This record gives sequence, structure tokens and C-alpha cells, in this order.
Amino acid sequence: MEQEYSITEEINHYLDILFPITRSLTGKGNRETLRVIQEIIPLKIKEVPSGTKVYDWIVPDEWNIKGAWIKDRSGSTLVDMANCNLHVVSYSEPVKMIMDWDQLRPKLNWIDELPDAVPYRTSYYKRDWGFCVTKDQYDAIREAGTVEVFIDSEFSQGSLSYGEILIPGKSEKEILISCYICHPSMANDSLSGVILTAFIARSLMSDQPELMHSYRIIFVPETIGAITYCATHEEQIKELVAGLVITTVGGPGKYGYKQSFEKNHDINGIIESVLNEMDIDFITYPFDVYGSDERQYSSQGFRVNVASITRDKYYEYDYYHTSLDNLDYVKAKNISESYDIYRRIIARLDRNLTYDTVQKYCEPMFGKRNLYPSLGGGLLPPEEEMDDLDCMLWLNYFCDGTHSLFGISEAIGATVEQLHRIARILESRGLLKLLL
Amino acid sequence: MEQEYSITEEINHYLDILFPITRSLTGKGNRETLRVIQEIIPLKIKEVPSGTKVYDWIVPDEWNIKGAWIKDRSGSTLVDMANCNLHVVSYSEPVKMIMDWDQLRPKLNWIDELPDAVPYRTSYYKRDWGFCVTKDQYDAIREAGTVEVFIDSEFSQGSLSYGEILIPGKSEKEILISCYICHPSMANDSLSGVILTAFIARSLMSDQPELMHSYRIIFVPETIGAITYCATHEEQIKELVAGLVITTVGGPGKYGYKQSFEKNHDINGIIESVLNEMDIDFITYPFDVYGSDERQYSSQGFRVNVASITRDKYYEYDYYHTSLDNLDYVKAKNISESYDIYRRIIARLDRNLTYDTVQKYCEPMFGKRNLYPSLGGGLLPPEEEMDDLDCMLWLNYFCDGTHSLFGISEAIGATVEQLHRIARILESRGLLKLLL
Amino acid sequence: MEQEYSITEEINHYLDILFPITRSLTGKGNRETLRVIQEIIPLKIKEVPSGTKVYDWIVPDEWNIKGAWIKDRSGSTLVDMANCNLHVVSYSEPVKMIMDWDQLRPKLNWIDELPDAVPYRTSYYKRDWGFCVTKDQYDAIREAGTVEVFIDSEFSQGSLSYGEILIPGKSEKEILISCYICHPSMANDSLSGVILTAFIARSLMSDQPELMHSYRIIFVPETIGAITYCATHEEQIKELVAGLVITTVGGPGKYGYKQSFEKNHDINGIIESVLNEMDIDFITYPFDVYGSDERQYSSQGFRVNVASITRDKYYEYDYYHTSLDNLDYVKAKNISESYDIYRRIIARLDRNLTYDTVQKYCEPMFGKRNLYPSLGGGLLPPEEEMDDLDCMLWLNYFCDGTHSLFGISEAIGATVEQLHRIARILESRGLLKLLL
Repeated sequence: MEQEYSITEEINHYLDILFPITRSLTGKGNRETLRVIQEIIPLKIKEVPSGTKVYDWIVPDEWNIKGAWIKDRSGSTLVDMANCNLHVVSYSEPVKMIMDWDQLRPKLNWIDELPDAVPYRTSYYKRDWGFCVTKDQYDAIREAGTVEVFIDSEFSQGSLSYGEILIPGKSEKEILISCYICHPSMANDSLSGVILTAFIARSLMSDQPELMHSYRIIFVPETIGAITYCATHEEQIKELVAGLVITTVGGPGKYGYKQSFEKNHDINGIIESVLNEMDIDFITYPFDVYGSDERQYSSQGFRVNVASITRDKYYEYDYYHTSLDNLDYVKAKNISESYDIYRRIIARLDRNLTYDTVQKYCEPMFGKRNLYPSLGGGLLPPEEEMDDLDCMLWLNYFCDGTHSLFGISEAIGATVEQLHRIARILESRGLLKLLL
Repeated sequence: MEQEYSITEEINHYLDILFPITRSLTGKGNRETLRVIQEIIPLKIKEVPSGTKVYDWIVPDEWNIKGAWIKDRSGSTLVDMANCNLHVVSYSEPVKMIMDWDQLRPKLNWIDELPDAVPYRTSYYKRDWGFCVTKDQYDAIREAGTVEVFIDSEFSQGSLSYGEILIPGKSEKEILISCYICHPSMANDSLSGVILTAFIARSLMSDQPELMHSYRIIFVPETIGAITYCATHEEQIKELVAGLVITTVGGPGKYGYKQSFEKNHDINGIIESVLNEMDIDFITYPFDVYGSDERQYSSQGFRVNVASITRDKYYEYDYYHTSLDNLDYVKAKNISESYDIYRRIIARLDRNLTYDTVQKYCEPMFGKRNLYPSLGGGLLPPEEEMDDLDCMLWLNYFCDGTHSLFGISEAIGATVEQLHRIARILESRGLLKLLL
Repeated sequence: MEQEYSITEEINHYLDILFPITRSLTGKGNRETLRVIQEIIPLKIKEVPSGTKVYDWIVPDEWNIKGAWIKDRSGSTLVDMANCNLHVVSYSEPVKMIMDWDQLRPKLNWIDELPDAVPYRTSYYKRDWGFCVTKDQYDAIREAGTVEVFIDSEFSQGSLSYGEILIPGKSEKEILISCYICHPSMANDSLSGVILTAFIARSLMSDQPELMHSYRIIFVPETIGAITYCATHEEQIKELVAGLVITTVGGPGKYGYKQSFEKNHDINGIIESVLNEMDIDFITYPFDVYGSDERQYSSQGFRVNVASITRDKYYEYDYYHTSLDNLDYVKAKNISESYDIYRRIIARLDRNLTYDTVQKYCEPMFGKRNLYPSLGGGLLPPEEEMDDLDCMLWLNYFCDGTHSLFGISEAIGATVEQLHRIARILESRGLLKLLL
């Protein structure tokens, strides 16, 4: 797998800049994250006011937090959000009080099996507060008995922020690329996905003269952000050809892909074909109602096939949703390898077009267009190779507006890339027309 | 298999009462049978006049018989219908004459392989007459040489009788339960089915507040009765969701089920799922054009999927259509076990509903309805169990008006009962709507 | 395989007459060939003027040739078309010139691996000329150095000739039988197919009182002739039920069949069923875009399923498109065996009808039509045989306008012939109606 040194470097640079920011469903950290992404691509940042009704949901109040700590009676700090922004349950209400152990205990989250980890917890839709701590911190708090607890958070009538970039290609048929920006300092889930999405967007912009599909690329807080986006772009989501949710792409473990809801959809076939060609050993995760924002895009009204290619998939790795999902765990090199894979998959998706024939009765006369050997009567082309002539004839046979190039490639054993190249020649000679 | 003692007792009681009655396509015996059933359920008894055109058929004249015998010249009785109503071919015309062996022989039916059995024969649509006898009787008649033959039967412009009970449930979607009342004294075919159908009807009436489907339960003479019913209820038959023909459910042998014409129809899947859950070893009989009244309900204009669960299926047991299919062969306990099985199958059929979503774009907010854990960020529920939360999310994903609960149960490995319970919760919260 | 001696004799007679004729896309040889076929069947010969636009193609100028040779400087003949009409590239322009070896070499075609063979080459759509020679001739020409070359050919504003015969059956549904007449002296490809088609047409005419389908039988030059025919019979081609391209049916090797584009189409199933019944070992060639005129009939606007049964399929035998594909290689006996096979396949295709029921609700009363045993109550017919009663009941069940007799035969294990016989009885009794 070749990769320009510079991309890995760039990814590393943005991992360092973006990792420390405190993100949530809303708030300044999200805006700051989107502004950093603007250094990479000309992202539009949109704001949807708190209280906006989006289908069955309401955009929540904006939440911002300046700091939070737990101190013992001597004033020494037992837990400080300045050290790790996972210490505070996301969307915690403001608190300042003296509490004894029995009162505080239900507000503490920790993980017995990972004593050094700070777990990640949220309480978005039920007003509450809490702390997430390591096992040592938990023990120290218990020993301290009475402690002072402080959360300097604020709810306000603000807005939910998201980023969007539309990259038009030849066809108005759109592919969605969606990542989520609501996770605070965790590197695989979801920062790796945010950074990879930004670089994919940049690469698509440079591919643009050759792009066949259009791309709708969004950076949204998970669930409520995706729902907000759907509610404000209902017609566009309905028309999507397919989509990718990019997340957890930087771990040290095994590649995997979560299938879209239709097992036999081209997007799944294309992902498998690319991973197999690259000789990558991967885990197949069947479609599941647990997951990320594909849950929204796959709902009854949309039914868009959306898949994810992952490296250490969310749910599946030990450090998932903990402070150990950090920059020791996630490496820029892993992300840049995933970038290569996504690039190839998207390139194939992009070329997976559907053509119709112009001349639907009988074969066109290839000869007069210099598309056919002029001296007839010879034998078949050698069987070992699927040569261009074969592809041309098969395309001419199959293209009736119902077969995708990937479908044809599976039927005859040619690659989508070869078929696409020849289909464009036939299109330029007036024999095929692209369904746009 | 638990069963209230009383049901077995009741079944036994009705076996004793109903077994001796001489039934046929029409006549007093059929009416008497239906009146006995009225002790169990409020059956409506309907009469269709002889001569009524029903599709390609005509309701035949009513046939009644008082007695029939064969006597030798000394006046001693060789065969007497008073001992066994199978002795006379059903719909025999009246006869009183002296005959010698050569004349009588073509009118006699017996079974070489079952010398003690009286076979069951009919001549409904060709005016004829005949006797059915044991091998000993056959030999005695031959030895007697000249005999006197008497059949005291009568054809009249009367009517064909059938019983019907409609048990409405929440939905107007109907399931048909059909049994046939035209067989004289044979216990497995068809008396066991008639009695079981009556008790199933009674149980559905007591389930009624919870019934999801409506039930159309009919007691008809086989073929002509089913055809008469179809001809007089054409629109209702067309709209049926599925059906069961209940017959031969009391034998000592193996359970079996005859599939409906669409092998992959839910009714077949549901029957198999129940039999497997109950750990019952059963024979699968593929759909066949030979059979019972499913032949009518499955015809081109109706194409209703109708199955039968049997214990010693008609055609398949040695005593089929003979006098040995009697109360030594059939036991109330067997019927009450079959009753349990039918109850379970019908319960599952009843809950096999189709829901549509109310909120078709994106997920509903389960949290605000207290349907979702409020502290987010945790792991998946443990994989060993399909818990209610899983079912809720899968229902929310699948329900779009095209997936039955049984279909969903097969896809995700939950039971129809669990799915139904949760679907009703989602329905009560305004998230799903039942397709009625 | 039995065959009347006379058919083999007749085939032999026409092989001898037709083999020497110089055929091409157009010209006198084609007309002469069609006139010879008129001795067998009342073929209509049609002419389409040069220059006629047919879809993407144009009917070419008529090409006729009187002779051609290469002589050395001493005037002795090195190559003479009088000996083998394959010596001249078909559609060669007229030439008369002195040439040296370097000039002539690019105009010569020969086959290294088959030094004794004269290859068959054409240059239909690019004005050019050339000779096809054996290896010895090639060497002699090279040794001769300077030679005189003469091609006495002529292009004219004439016409393309084709033959057509329509054999109407009971139904207006048509089956296409197509063969190609454009090959000069080669016996397997395509003369064997032309002769076999003529005899098939004759046999269908004698079957005519019993024919269920109508037959459209055409003798066209390959590709341009088929395209011309499609362009002038567009509506008829669209409506075809299926088709056969008859070619290469007289070789000494193995039988094979090229599937039509829909693998599961009845035509493929029927061919396989006949070949298997006849215990013939055969090669299955999947549909391919390389092939004969099925390429035109299978194009998007028509999508007619067309197959070919072959003996030594084109492309597959060593002597393909050479002078060795001659009357030593091809025997009348082989063609008459292929005739038997085609006869059987077409007979089954012919009976592969689709019926609808007249009485769509419930079973018809078979008894009153003497179609059913009148004494009821007996057992099933013995399982070993699919008897006529079974077929009748299954036909009665299946026939709803969507199931072909072949489809039913596959479902129940009866033969198309038995089903057809019984369907006609049911039709005559007013129970089924044939979809015409």
C-alpha cells in the first residue's frame, strides 16, 4: 500500500490539533472542529437553532463547559476535566456542592475491567450530571469521603452546528459521505473518521473533472445531527444512490465492513471486491440496527444503502468509548491506509454507472466507427483474457438501463474500471447514453 | 403436553354422541351433527336448496336413509346397516329386489387386505347403489346364492346444510377454519376434525378480547359443501389471509402437515416453527392436488394458502375410509393433543400481523417515551439474548407495511410472540400502526 | 436414432448441389441457393435494394464475381478460384495487375497450423481485396516473385436476397427459425444449417394441421441479413416467443447447445430435456455475445431467447472457416441425426403452450364430463406413475395464464407431451382456454 508521506504527516498534524477539543452534540468545540476542517476543504458551516423540530426530535439547547473538578476537603484535586474532557458526562448540568460518598457514588462511572480508563458517557436528553473516572480516582474519592464537586457548564438557546460540502460530478446522482463530530477526545471513534472524511473530500475535489457522481459530504453530530440533516434535506436524502458512514478507521486491528441493509446491493459487492483485490483480510458485519447514522439513512422513508469500512470497528475494541482510545492507540499511518482503501472503493462506486443503449434494435455497426477488426472470418479472441473487444460487445448487449457496470462486471468477470473506460468510448461514439 | 382433563372428557363425550350418526352430503344426519355442535358453540345452521347452481356444480337432492339389509332366502340377515352405516354406498338409490350372486356381485365392495373392514364408498353424482361388506359377509352372500336386497333410501328436493360461525377480532383480516361433516361413522376421517374445530372455535371465542384476526369457521360437506360456501361467499374467500382444513387429527400415529401451495408462505413456516418448538417429529406433505377442501380455496380465483396438521393423515393410514377407523382407533386424548398444537399454531397465526411505521423518516425518539436507556455511550446488549430493546429497534427498522411479524422473526431470530408484544407497545405509543 | 433412408439421401443430394455455389452477403450465388431450396419448400425470395438503411447499417452494394487467379510470369496458374471459391476474400474489389512479392504478401491469408487448408476471409465493409491460399500455394507465390493477379469481381447497385416462409399454426404466437446463407463452399458452417432448416420447414408444413405455434423461417445472410430482416419486421420480431439459429449441424464430433440469454428460459430447459431423453452427451455453451444471428434477436429492443443445437459448433472445430470444412468432413447422415433432434425439440417447443382456466373459482365438476372415476372414496392412484388423472388435476390447478406446460412438467414430473394431450381434452370440454 503506497501512500504519500505528506498525507500521513498531514493526518498526524490534524490528529494533534483536533484531539484535545471538547466536542458534544452542540457547542463551541464543534464549531472549532469544523473551522479546523476548513483549512483542508471549503466546508460550509451551518447552524440550526435550538428548539427546531426535526421529525420526532427537537434540536437541544446548546451546551458549553468551561471546567469541572472534584476536590477533597483539603482542597486537593482528585479529578479535573482539564486533564481529560471525558471526566464529565456530556451534557451535564452545572453543579457546585459538597457531597458525601453515598450521595456522589451514583454519579460516578468507571470500568472495573479497564481500571486506567476514563469511560465516555452522555446524558443528552435527560437533565443530569456525572463524572467518569479511573479506578484509582474512584478509590481516592471514596477514601476522601466528603468532597466538593464542581461542573461549570451552561445551557443556552444556541444552535447545532454541522459542516457540509457538495462536490458535483457529471451526474446529478449523489453519493453520501457522512461522519460524526460529537465525540470529545477519542481518536478512533470518531476523530479518525472526521479527518479521513476531510481528506477524502479534498481528493474528490481534485478528481472533480473526472467525477461521475456528485458527492454530499457532511460532518454532523451523531443521531440528532444526522436527523437534523435529513429533516432539512429530505428530498436529497431520498434520491441518494448509496452512502458511506466513515468512522473508526485508525485502529491497529483488523479491517471490517458493516454491510448496508440490502446484502446484495452493489455497495457491498464493491467494498468486498476492493478489499479482496487489495488482499486485505477483513471481517464482515451484517447490517444491524445498532450502529451509526446509517440507522437514519436506512429508515423506511429513505432506505438508502449505507456501509462503513472500519479498522477496529466501534463496539468491537477494548478501548471503545474510553480515554484509552487515544493517540497511543490510533496512528496517522493507519488512517492513511484506510484512506487508500476508501479512495479505491469510492473510485469504483463513482464509476459504477448505468448506461442505456442508443440503438436498441440489433447491433450497431462497430466497424464504421473503427471499433471492430475489419477483416472478418477469424476465430474468437483468446479465451484467457477478457479483452476490450469482449467488454465492448458485452456492454453493448447488457446496457439497457437496468444493469450497473458493477453488475455487468460480476456477470462477465471484467473490472468496473475497464468497463467504464470502454463505456465512455461507446458513449463518445453515440452508442451508449449515461443515465444521469 | 398439558391439557385440562375436562377437554379430553368433553371430546370423548362428543365422540360417543356423534360417531354413530349417518352423515352424507346432505340429510338429517348432517343437521343432527350440526345441532350437537351447537351445544359447544353458537353455530349458525344454513340451508342451500337442492338444485342451486354453485359454479360448475349443482347442489344435489337431499338424501336420507332409514335402513338397508341383505337377507338370504331363509330370511336371516347377512348384512344390516343398523350395525354399520358404512354398509350402504352413500347416496344409494332405493332398492328392493331378489337377486342372484352374479347380479349382486358388481354391487359389492370389500377389501381383500382388510377382511374385517367395511369399506366406505359413495356414489354422489351417478345414480347407483351398492353395499360395502367384510370379507366374511362377502363369502356368506356368495354362498347364499340368491338373496333379498333392500335399501330404504329417499331422494328429495331438500337442501344442503352447513354450519358457520364468525368470530371477529381487532382486524377485519380473516383466517378460515374449515372442516367437513359428510362422513358417516368414521372417527379419524372426519369426526376428529369436526370435534376439534368446534373446540377451537370455542377457545377463540374466549380469546376474543385479544384476538387480532377474525375467524371464519365452517362445517361443510366436503367438496360440494366447500364449493357451495365459496359460491355464496366469493368476496370473503378472496380476501382470506390464510386457512386451515382440520381433519384426521385423532389417530395413534405420527403427526404430519400438508403444506399450502406456496411453500414459503408464512402459514407453513409458522406450522413448522410451532411443531419444532414442541419437539414433535412430523412428516411434511408437500402441496398436492389430491386432498380436501384446500383444493377449492386454492383454486385460481382464490389462491388462498390453506394447510392441514394431521395425526395419521387421510390416505396414509391402513384403516382410512373403512369401518376400522373407529373409536378403538381414535382416542379423545390424541385429539386433545392435536387441539393443543392447533391452539398454538393459531395463536401464532393470529399474532402474525403486519405493521407500518407512523414516523417514516429517521428513528423516532425512543428516549422521550421511556423506551430507551437514558445514559448513552454504553456497549451493545449482550449477544446471547435477543432482548426487548433489540426487538424494538428491529421492528422499528422493518415495519414498513411489507414485512409480517413472522417474516421479521425469521430474519432476526426472535419469536412472533415477543415481537407482537413489543409491536403493541410501539403501537400504543403511536410509533407503529397495524395494517387492518 | 431411426431415420428414413430417403431424408439422408435427399440431404446428400442437396449437399452436392449447394456446396459448390459461391455465396456471400449478396449476389447471384445467394439467389441460386434460395432457388434450390424452393425445390424443397415454397420459399418466398425477397430483395432489399443496396443502399437501404437498416438501423445503424446500410445494405451494401451487390457483389458478384466471375473468377480470380494468380499466375506466375510464365503464365502458369498458381491459384485459381475455379478450384475453390474461398481463394478470394469475399467482397474483394476487382484487380488486375503485376505485383512483386512484397506488394502481394499483405494480401495473402493462409494458416500455418493447417497448411492444406484455404482459410475463409471477408472484407465486407472496407473496400479491399485479398487471396486465401494453402501453405504450398503461399510458398509457390513467394518463389515466383513477380506474379499477375486478377480478380474479376463487380460491385453494383443491386439487392440483398433472403428467403422467408411463414407456417401458421393454431396460435399466432411465433417461433423463429433462422439460418444464414452467406458462406461459400463450407459444409458444416453454414450449409448443413441451411439444408436442415429447409427440411425442418418441410416437416412443419406436413405437421401443419397439428401445429400449435406459427413458424417464421428465414434464410438470410448472417448479420446484415438478420439486421435487414429485423428492420423490415420489427413488430414481428418483438412478438416472437423464442427462436433457433440453425448452423453447424453436420460435423462428426460432439453435440452442443448454445443457451439463450436467459439461462432459465423454457427453450433451454426444453433442449436439455430432449437431449437427455435421447441419451445424447452434449456440451452446454452459455450465452455469449460472440455467435451468430441470435446477437440481433437478443438485442435490447427484441430480447428474444434464441438457442442453437450444434454438432461441432462454429469456432470450436479445427476446420472451422477453412476449405477443410467440406463434404469429407460433413456427412448427410450426421445432418439427418441432427434433424431428428431438432424435430423433437421443435415438437416440444410447439406443445409448450400456456393455458388459462375457464372456471376460475373452485374445481370444475369433472364427473359430469366423464373425466373422473364415478365411485368415490377410494385411495390415491399408485404413486409410481403420474397418470392422466394426476395430470388433469395438476393442469386444473396450475393453469391460470402464468404457467407454461414445460414449467408445469418440471414442477410435477410429467412430460410436456402428456400434459399437452390432456390439456387439449380439457380445452375441448370447455375447461381450459389456450392463450393464443
